Amino acid sequence: MHKLVLVRHGQSEWNLENRFTGWTDVDLTAQGVREAVDGAALLRDGGFAFDIAHTSYLKRAIRTLWLIQEEMDLMWLPVFKTWRLNERHYGALQGLNKAETAARYGDEQVFAWRRSFDTPPPPLEPDDARYPGHDPRYAALSPGEVPRCESLKATIDRTMPYWFETVAPQIHAGQRVLIVAHGNSLRGLVKYLDDMDEEAITQLNIPTGLPLVYELDDSLKALNRYYLGDQEAAARAAEAVANQAKGG
Amino acid sequence: MHKLVLVRHGQSEWNLENRFTGWTDVDLTAQGVREAVDGAALLRDGGFAFDIAHTSYLKRAIRTLWLIQEEMDLMWLPVFKTWRLNERHYGALQGLNKAETAARYGDEQVFAWRRSFDTPPPPLEPDDARYPGHDPRYAALSPGEVPRCESLKATIDRTMPYWFETVAPQIHAGQRVLIVAHGNSLRGLVKYLDDMDEEAITQLNIPTGLPLVYELDDSLKALNRYYLGDQEAAARAAEAVANQAKGG
Repeated sequence: MHKLVLVRHGQSEWNLENRFTGWTDVDLTAQGVREAVDGAALLRDGGFAFDIAHTSYLKRAIRTLWLIQEEMDLMWLPVFKTWRLNERHYGALQGLNKAETAARYGDEQVFAWRRSFDTPPPPLEPDDARYPGHDPRYAALSPGEVPRCESLKATIDRTMPYWFETVAPQIHAGQRVLIVAHGNSLRGLVKYLDDMDEEAITQLNIPTGLPLVYELDDSLKALNRYYLGDQEAAARAAEAVANQAKGG
Repeated sequence: MHKLVLVRHGQSEWNLENRFTGWTDVDLTAQGVREAVDGAALLRDGGFAFDIAHTSYLKRAIRTLWLIQEEMDLMWLPVFKTWRLNERHYGALQGLNKAETAARYGDEQVFAWRRSFDTPPPPLEPDDARYPGHDPRYAALSPGEVPRCESLKATIDRTMPYWFETVAPQIHAGQRVLIVAHGNSLRGLVKYLDDMDEEAITQLNIPTGLPLVYELDDSLKALNRYYLGDQEAAARAAEAVANQAKGG
């Protein structure tokens, strides 16, 4: 039996401002920092240990991981960073206020952008300053890999190769793995591990900062999964995420 | 022409307490944090950019690197950690106060432990809690690699394979590399890059927190080297390190 722990980063500056974030590299708020530290305490008090951690190229996830490493006295842990664990790219919506966007495009359109499985948001033009092709951290991506926008489906499609090529072999080799990432890249992993369908995964809201523990069989499918800490708090946190209907 | 930047971590808690540190995993002091942030500002204002960073398994170096990454907005940078960049292992002296040790063993003996090229300090017994074989972060080392104590020579001998096998190929491939490490592991790199002899390297004191920039030819030997920032401050910092005669 293998164990895997997933953590969704805590509140970011743009969560707080109710703006579409995507690949915009905003930091955690003070509340986001507290969520990470609280999650780390649950891992430490639960006796968890890790050999390897994975995170995205975005500082709200990296900061969350760093705080966990500090709290668990695991600053030496090998950390792999990858754009494939980044949040869904929100295209031309990135930076826009969610309420203003709803007022402009209508609730139904915004709901489709945020909650459907395969509807992408409006794409960025390559000359837009927000286009990731201008950012040196994505210089190693092939032109076809640099997104102008992503649906949840597109996000999952670029996340999963990292699971199969990098993470799964480490778990098979007996490494204890921690993944700190984003709502939508984590949805990709959960959909695979739990064999969820497209409808179910769009409904799933992973609470921020609460460690989600998977127990996996030898084919790395879920035998069991649970959140650490107060189960009622986990349910409330998931509901709060759903009510905010952030999605970005 | 290739560029390489070396940074020695800032003041640690045990530098401040004047204790032999070695592989003991103490954190930076507030002054050490300031030194790291100041060094990062010099790199940022000098227009430096990096593709890859390397550091040790010890948090005073990792913290220094994290602070540089934050200040330079490079939290996404790929970071490689290795025990081969750790500080010299100070054996049974680790944790002892330097003045008390001199009173007990005599100035001459302590000077030899601290300043000779190949005199190791007294070794740890394997049942000593300080022996690195008990620490999970060193579990992947072969028994022959886990030190009970190290001379400067032994430190350099285990540091350099990392240079040849990991760092040098990256520099040859055009990657801009930052190394954040410790007084004695950095001495190994400097000795090689500058073709220094054993006597000269024992005399060299690398100031803490000040970025040391190397310009290297195609065989990765030094064409030029300089500290960023106020050159007089660099000279004073080196002298302060020498006067403290920390060495650990």
